[in-house]
Formats: sequence, structure tokens, C-alpha cells
Amino acid sequence: MSENFADRLTAAIIGKSSQVCVGLDPRLDSIPSVILEEHRPAEGANGCGRSEAAAAIEQFCAGIIEAVAPSVAAVKPQLACFEPYGPPGIRALRHTCRRAAEAGLLVIADAKRGDIGISAESYSAAFIGRPRGLEGDLDNFGADAMTVNPLFGSDGVEPFIRDCAGYGKGLFVLVRTSNPGASELQALELSGGGTVSDRLAGMVVDWGRDLVGESGYSSIGAVVGATDSSAIGGFREMMPGVFFLLPGYGAQGASAGDVAAAFDSDGLGALVTASRSIIYAGNDASYAEAAAAAAERMRVELWEASH
Amino acid sequence: MSENFADRLTAAIIGKSSQVCVGLDPRLDSIPSVILEEHRPAEGANGCGRSEAAAAIEQFCAGIIEAVAPSVAAVKPQLACFEPYGPPGIRALRHTCRRAAEAGLLVIADAKRGDIGISAESYSAAFIGRPRGLEGDLDNFGADAMTVNPLFGSDGVEPFIRDCAGYGKGLFVLVRTSNPGASELQALELSGGGTVSDRLAGMVVDWGRDLVGESGYSSIGAVVGATDSSAIGGFREMMPGVFFLLPGYGAQGASAGDVAAAFDSDGLGALVTASRSIIYAGNDASYAEAAAAAAERMRVELWEASH
Repeated sequence: MSENFADRLTAAIIGKSSQVCVGLDPRLDSIPSVILEEHRPAEGANGCGRSEAAAAIEQFCAGIIEAVAPSVAAVKPQLACFEPYGPPGIRALRHTCRRAAEAGLLVIADAKRGDIGISAESYSAAFIGRPRGLEGDLDNFGADAMTVNPLFGSDGVEPFIRDCAGYGKGLFVLVRTSNPGASELQALELSGGGTVSDRLAGMVVDWGRDLVGESGYSSIGAVVGATDSSAIGGFREMMPGVFFLLPGYGAQGASAGDVAAAFDSDGLGALVTASRSIIYAGNDASYAEAAAAAAERMRVELWEASH
Repeated sequence: MSENFADRLTAAIIGKSSQVCVGLDPRLDSIPSVILEEHRPAEGANGCGRSEAAAAIEQFCAGIIEAVAPSVAAVKPQLACFEPYGPPGIRALRHTCRRAAEAGLLVIADAKRGDIGISAESYSAAFIGRPRGLEGDLDNFGADAMTVNPLFGSDGVEPFIRDCAGYGKGLFVLVRTSNPGASELQALELSGGGTVSDRLAGMVVDWGRDLVGESGYSSIGAVVGATDSSAIGGFREMMPGVFFLLPGYGAQGASAGDVAAAFDSDGLGALVTASRSIIYAGNDASYAEAAAAAAERMRVELWEASH
């Protein structure tokens, strides 16, 4: 486990012939009703409590993981979808991360955490490091990597980087997000030239210098939205050796052609995420088969567009 | 509870004659050993498991809340300090929030969450809104407000603002953080004039327009670090009617004089947070008395400097 994260990710991509990462964004109002029915507490109840909700999303994620495992390199559980269910939700997240690891998938905790000093250390400990002063079962979520928000600057990101170095883990730092509002702040032009995102790109390159693996990529990667396809090539040039995590494929509108510029000539260096277009490809009892087919289709599309 | 958050906060400040918010940042290696000993599972163990750790930090926070309640308007639990302990940690956070509310304190969840679309909705639901499709005990953490990271732009913040409007809750949006690295990104000069933080300040003013209460302040506030005291007056001018949450007092170096420019002529419109200088004022069995004294001293210092 102390192997370089970028090397482990590269091996997984080559091993599966897949640059696909499935986003696990389970929502109570989107998962198949057959699953909800199993966990509905009583006749006549319109909704369920936190424990039942958490059990339902955990079961749904388990089905998705098993279904997509042959076609994908990694999964990306979205923390926001588990937190509303309190302690049972966090337990469901933990089980989901473990189940994905047991299925041979890399786990990227989509936490988008960001803070300073001791707080940044604690967030890192929760997801990729080890809490101080504890004995026993120390690997909280067992994630291989996590997403972080760089608004705080270097001293906010360094605690995470230290744990990447110490435990063979990885980061994906937000550089350019896939939403329309991203332009309001991230695309602002700086008086010294370039945009806020460009500056972030330079910072990510610096932060990752000491964690470059045998693959030529660093364990400190970047989130680059796939929805602005014209920008991807520019970011690739600015960040050689930086692994890209590209959200925005499928439901958000990006295609295999849109993300082609993110890959190197071997089809490596980038992982493309999709969530809704895969996990909600079917919404009845055959949801897992539908997800498996959608994941395999995406795998083939990306592999062919990049090779 | 559907009253305007800024009005509730203003009433709390006037009622307590206090602009103090105590940061609840419990750390296993900093809390008094008398508390840890109580929760140590077995003879000879060097550390404890997650459940014991969570019980220890919950007990510590309970002692702090009771001790500081007479002198402070609000508490600010730091999510990062609870997450490393998994489900028991989240349970401890929930109990801590409820205990603070029962003690008559406003609760600001220092979550610094940020995401887009459905994920932003889910984070908001976890802390200040209501998860969809659930019945029963819907108020997860019972927070009155939370901190958010605005890197995503308007569509990342809007889901939180909707819940503020719907449930009488508040936000504090990161505009300028208190760490040295803040300058790397937040202080960058834009080609159109001003800095990244200045632009964020303008966005916060816009986001809060519809949630201004009778106090003249909006429920959409701003985090402005107290450590760069020369900048506070400028932010005050840029953001009239925006409640400030100022970290950096005490252990991080800022004094009552440094933050004076954040208040209006009535001593209102800002809440100053301190954590380590209060919660770790004593580190033995009398830690609560030491925290009470430190909180009261800070209350008097701020009240006198702003009146």
C-alpha cells in the first residue's frame, strides 16, 4: 500500500483497459424503488428514517460496484450523498469504500475538503491518513485518493500531500470544475496573465514534484471539468505529469472526443468520471445490468478514442 | 426557527453582550488526560478506538459548552475534528450541536463544504436543510449556519442559499482566510482590478440581497480572517450589511484592536471566533473553569474595543 498512487492507478487502467471512474452518487429519490421497498420500515410510511435510507443507498452502491467492476478502474463515492443520513450514512460510506476495494477497484473519496493547519490534517487523517492517538482499526474509509479544494493555498494542501507521501495515497486538486458557474471565479483573468485556474494548475505541478512515480505521473492530480473541451488541451500542456480526473462526461454533456486531449499518446494520464449516466441507466430491478452495460460502453468509447 | 438568521444572531449578541464564537476543535492529543483516562478501554492500551475517542471528544465539548455559554453567542464545531472517528464521531458531533442549542447558543457548522448541483444540495440538506424522502427526525445536526467554500461560483452556493431562505438558516462564505497561504490565491490581482477576495466579497453581497433582516444584516455572511487586520476595514466597506465571521483571534495572533474595524458603530455585524486560546486554556481537570475565564476575558476585550 505504500506504492505510489499514480503507479497503482496506471496499473489499474492498463489492467482493465479502462479509463472509467464511476461516481457513486446515490440519491434516495433516484435509486430503484425495488430497493427502497425492501427498506421501507412500515406499511403506509411515505419515507424512511436515516438508518433505512442508509441501508438502501448502501445496497444500491453494492449492486453498482459488483456490476461495473469488470469495466472500470475506480469508483468515486460522493461524500455529499452519504452525509445527510448522519452516522448510519457514514457507516454506509465506509462499507461502500471497503466493498469497492474488495472488488479490486481504486477508491477516490469525492470529499472536496479544504481547510488549514490542524483541520486540514484531520480531514486528511479521516480519508487518506491515520488519526493520531488511536489504536485498532485505523483505516477509516480506506480511500486510495480524495479530492481537495485549493482555495486556502499551499499550507491548506500540504497536510494532505504529507499523507500521500506517507501512505501511498493520491489527491485530485480542483483546478477547473465542470459547472457553468465555474467561470465566475476560476476563469477570472489575473493582472499577471492567465486565469485563476491557470495559476492553480501551476501550483498543482509544484505540489506534485516529489511524488512522481515510475509511470511518469504524480500522485498529486487535478480535477479538470470535461464540459469545456476546448480548455482541456491547454491544461494538459500546463500540467505535464499530472493525472487528470475529468467530471462532466455523460449526463453533463461531454463525449469521448471532448476528453481525448486529456490523455497522453498511450491513452494514460487521465480518468474520466460519470455518475448519473451509469448508475441510473436503469431504474428498476435490472438497474445493475443496465449500469454494467453503460459502464462497458463508456469504457470502449474512451479506450477507442484515446488509442 | 424560520426567523431570519442574521436577526437571531444579532439578538444573541445583544442578549449576551458578546461577539464571541468559540471554535470547538477537539483533538485527542490536546484534550485533558483526565477525560481520555475515563474512556481508555483497557489497562496498558496506548490509545483508544474510534468509539472511545468519539466519547472523549464529546465529553470534552460538553464541558466547554457548559463553561462558556454565559459569555458567548455561538459555537463553531469544526467538522474536521469529528470526521476521523467515523460514525461514532458523527454521532458525537450531532450530540455536541444539540447540547449547544440546548444551552441557548447558536451553532455554526464549520464544514467549509463546496460542490455543485445535487451534491451541493445534499451538503446543504445535511447541515442546514432537510434530506428529501426521509421521515422522522429530520434535523441532522441542527446547525443554525454553516461555512461554505465559493470556488465553484454561484451555482455551487445557490442550493445553500435556498435552504437559508426556507429554514431561517445562515451561511458564512469564505472570502479571506486567516492562514499565511491565503495570499497565494485569494490575494491575486485581477486584470479587471481588485483581488480574488474582492471579487468574492462582491459575490457575497449579491448572494445575500434577498435575505437581509430587520437588523440590516443578511443571513449570507462572510469569513474574513482577523490575522490581516489592515484588510478588515476594506472588506467592511465592500460588504455593508454582510455579517463577518472572523477567525484568527488568540492563538493565531489577532487582538481586539485588530478586529475593531469589522464592527459597526453599535458593535454589531461581526462575530469573532477563537478556539485553542479558549478550549485549551487549561489542560487538566479544571479545563472548563479555564475556558470559562478565557471566554469571558475575550468577551470583555471585544465588547470594550467595539463600544
